[in-house]
Parts: sequence; structure tokens; C-alpha cells
Amino acid sequence: MKLLVIGTGMIGGAVARAARHVVTIDAIVGIDHHPAHARTALQLGLVDQMVDEVPTDASIIVIATPNEHIPGWIQRLQRHQGVVVDVGSVKGFIVDTVRAQLGRLPANYVPCHPLAGSEKHGPEHAPADLFRNRLLILTPAAETSAAAVLVARQFWSDLGAQLHVMNVVDHDITLAATSHLPHLLAFAFMRAIADEELRFSGGGFADFTRIAASNPELWWKIFRFNQAPLLRALAAFNEEVLALKEALEAGDDARGIALLDEAANRRRQL
Amino acid sequence: MKLLVIGTGMIGGAVARAARHVVTIDAIVGIDHHPAHARTALQLGLVDQMVDEVPTDASIIVIATPNEHIPGWIQRLQRHQGVVVDVGSVKGFIVDTVRAQLGRLPANYVPCHPLAGSEKHGPEHAPADLFRNRLLILTPAAETSAAAVLVARQFWSDLGAQLHVMNVVDHDITLAATSHLPHLLAFAFMRAIADEELRFSGGGFADFTRIAASNPELWWKIFRFNQAPLLRALAAFNEEVLALKEALEAGDDARGIALLDEAANRRRQL
Repeated sequence: MKLLVIGTGMIGGAVARAARHVVTIDAIVGIDHHPAHARTALQLGLVDQMVDEVPTDASIIVIATPNEHIPGWIQRLQRHQGVVVDVGSVKGFIVDTVRAQLGRLPANYVPCHPLAGSEKHGPEHAPADLFRNRLLILTPAAETSAAAVLVARQFWSDLGAQLHVMNVVDHDITLAATSHLPHLLAFAFMRAIADEELRFSGGGFADFTRIAASNPELWWKIFRFNQAPLLRALAAFNEEVLALKEALEAGDDARGIALLDEAANRRRQL
Repeated sequence: MKLLVIGTGMIGGAVARAARHVVTIDAIVGIDHHPAHARTALQLGLVDQMVDEVPTDASIIVIATPNEHIPGWIQRLQRHQGVVVDVGSVKGFIVDTVRAQLGRLPANYVPCHPLAGSEKHGPEHAPADLFRNRLLILTPAAETSAAAVLVARQFWSDLGAQLHVMNVVDHDITLAATSHLPHLLAFAFMRAIADEELRFSGGGFADFTRIAASNPELWWKIFRFNQAPLLRALAAFNEEVLALKEALEAGDDARGIALLDEAANRRRQL
């Protein structure tokens, strides 16, 4: 089987690197319009070959570009014989954009989202085992071919991922809360810190703010593509901040400790 | 020199453990009213001996209890011949409480705060090198003896800390922004997450929320003891969240990316 990876950045590079160990995959080719990424992916041996055109004999095609380029690729690949998956972190935007163009989703496209990432980018930062034991969410639609879903499941399982199927709307609501909102809060937090305060940061600060070093343009677009669920998650968060603020202002220690206690217990479940 | 550590929990235990390697310290004794902590600190060899009464010949006394017990110990030790330091994370509360009782700070007390911690507690979690290359803030007052400050500086330097002197008010404002606020936000965030959403958390989530596993009672008291600076830091943070929300709602991508960009640049300075 031939694997095509479109976009050989950090995530696409990690897909290629992990696919090396899948016995049924005997060729890995890449497409990347970013010359430095293409060169590095080839030099590191992540791919066997970089190509300009989509090979007709690819069995699995992974679209690992930024979210905004994914719908265009899905359209372009709608009649390809291979199974098309993506790694887009917002599924509603992708699915809605394709449906607006084509009137339907291509049967060969299986919407996917691996919950794995890094604040770093580029194929030189592609981890060897990015998907091992990490959750991969599939959000197949009514139009999606069952056979394509099976191939996609096998592919991600071979890369070590744990699979979870959910619908697009639930995916976007959940990820707004667990991923997009913490990024927004970490960015906002870093803006509220003065440069001269940076040296007074301990280990807690470093961990809390690590995701604020993420790619600003990429994340702004994620916020925009998943704006309504994100703003609802933000409103829910603001309610909790307000509850803590009110307990503080009321000097209500019993209530304050109870609020923190519930939070700590939930975190300790992780 | 004899070192007395009052409170042999995670931080006091780490003080004792690090002090083992200081050649001028030849005896380490502990006081802890928490029987399990006292037993563990002794069993692990962090201290040579647990005692009930403050030894009159201690040269350095480290108060490593929760913040609320620190003022009482400073008062009790006001005529002790040794130099008294603490590890309290809120300095205004401690200094103000002692001054309200005694009318002044004892000359032998040097207010200190090592920027080092962990969400874990107990002497069994005392790291071997908690203070190495970490910042230690001293906030000496007008009443503090210069000789006592010299002894305190030498002691923390011997433990590997980097020293920084600032006044009490600046300390509390700075720590409200860099430490107390992120804890409050992490606790609030965990409250806004549903139990069933926990499994959809990636590495970013884990880091962002790690501090929400901290001790609820201890942190609630820190919030209360440093309430005014904390609420001002929260207001500054809310302004930044609002700016991002307004850019989102206005669809102002240039502004949104510029806001995130500044945040990411500041984080990358760390």
C-alpha cells in the first residue's frame, strides 16, 4: 500500500514516521508546498519521495495541512480511489465547507482528529510516536463509506491510536472546552503578564502557559472556525471564575474551599 | 550550626534534604505537629531528630508551615538568638499580622519566599534539589537586622537558590499575577469541564491544569491572604479575554492574530 501525506509539517511528519513501522505500507510519499518542510521531510527519511501531483495509486491519503486548506483537498480528492483522512482540529468547519461546495461529503473521506500535538512545528519536530496510546476521534457522516471507515480505523490503530467515534457537533463542543478554550485563556494570561514579571515564574507558571507558545495564526483560525462552541465554553468558564470571585469577596471560606476541592478532585482523576 | 525546620512537609522536607549538603550545617532538627509527617521526615533521614521544643542553640530556623501559622511562630521566636526565615507565599499578610500583634517585626526575622513548589505534599515528596537555580525572594523590612539578612542570603545560596530582594507590596502584586491567578484560573477551568470530557484531554490540557490538583485549602487561603492584588490581576486578565472575545465577534483576524502573537512572543522569552 502506498501512503500519501499532504502537508509534511510536525503532524504530517509524525504520521509518516509512525507509518514506517506498519508492515502493510510499503511506500510513503509526501506533498508540501513549503520548500523547507519538503526538503527536511525527505532528508530525515520521513518520506521516500516528495511529489507534485497526487499519485493515483495511493491507498491512504492523510491531509495534514492547516485546517483552512483541508476542504479544498477533500474536494480535489473526491474521486480518488484511496481513502482520505485528515487531522483537522475543527470538524464542523471542514464538513460544512465541503458540503457547501459539493452538496455532500465524498464517500471516500473519513473526518479524523488525533488528540496529539505540540507547540512546536515543522517535520524536524515530528515525534517518533505521536499517536501511540493517544485518542483519535473519527466523525464519519451519513455519506461516508463504511469500507472507508474500516480502512481509516485500521490505519490509525496501526499507528497506535485509541479510536473513538462521535458526531461532528459533539466533537466541536468537546474540543472547544478541552483544547480551544485553554489555548485562548493561556494566550490571554500571557498578555496580562508584564515582561518584568516573567522572571518570577515558577514551574506552575511554565506548565500553565506552555500552550501560549503555540502558533498564533493557526490557533486564531481554530478559534474562528469553532467560534460559537468556543464562546459558549468561555461563558461557562467565566461563570466559574465569578463563583470563586464572589466567594472571595463574601469571605465565604467554606464555599471557596468546596469549589476548589471539586476542581482538584476532577483534575486528580486524570 | 544547627538548623531547625518547623513544618517538615514537602517544602520543609526539601529544605532539610538540601541542607544536608551544606558543610557549615552539622545538625538538622525538625518540629511538626503532624505525626505522620514527623515520622516520615525522620525515617527518610531528612532530619536527625524531631523535637517538641525550639532548641535554644539553633542558628537558623526555617518556618515551613502553611501561611496562617507563620505569624504565630515569628512572634514566638522574636527573642531567639537564631536567624528566622520563612517560606510563606504571601508576605503582606504575614508581616501585617505580626506588626498588628507586636507593633514591629522582630529584627531576627527575614521574610523569604522560594519560588519552588509542587502540587504534591508531604515529606515523602520532598525533591532532592527543589531550590537549585530557583528564585528566592527576600523582602526585608526596615526593622530587619542587616546581619540576619546576610545569614539568610548565605543559607539560601548554599541551597542553590538565586536571590532577589524586593519590597513586600511588589512581591504580593507580582505573585498574584504569576502564581495565584494561574491557580485560580486552573481551578475555575477544571470546574467548567464535565467529567465525561476528561478523556478528551491532550498534553496541552494536562499541563494547563496540573496546578488545579494543588491543595484546595492551602490555595484558598493564599487567595484570601492576597485577595486585593489577586482580584486586580484577575481584572487585568479579564480585560485581555474580553479583547480576544471582541476581536472574535468582530471577525477582526488581523487584530486577533496580533493579540496572540504578542502573547506567544512573551511566552517564548521564558
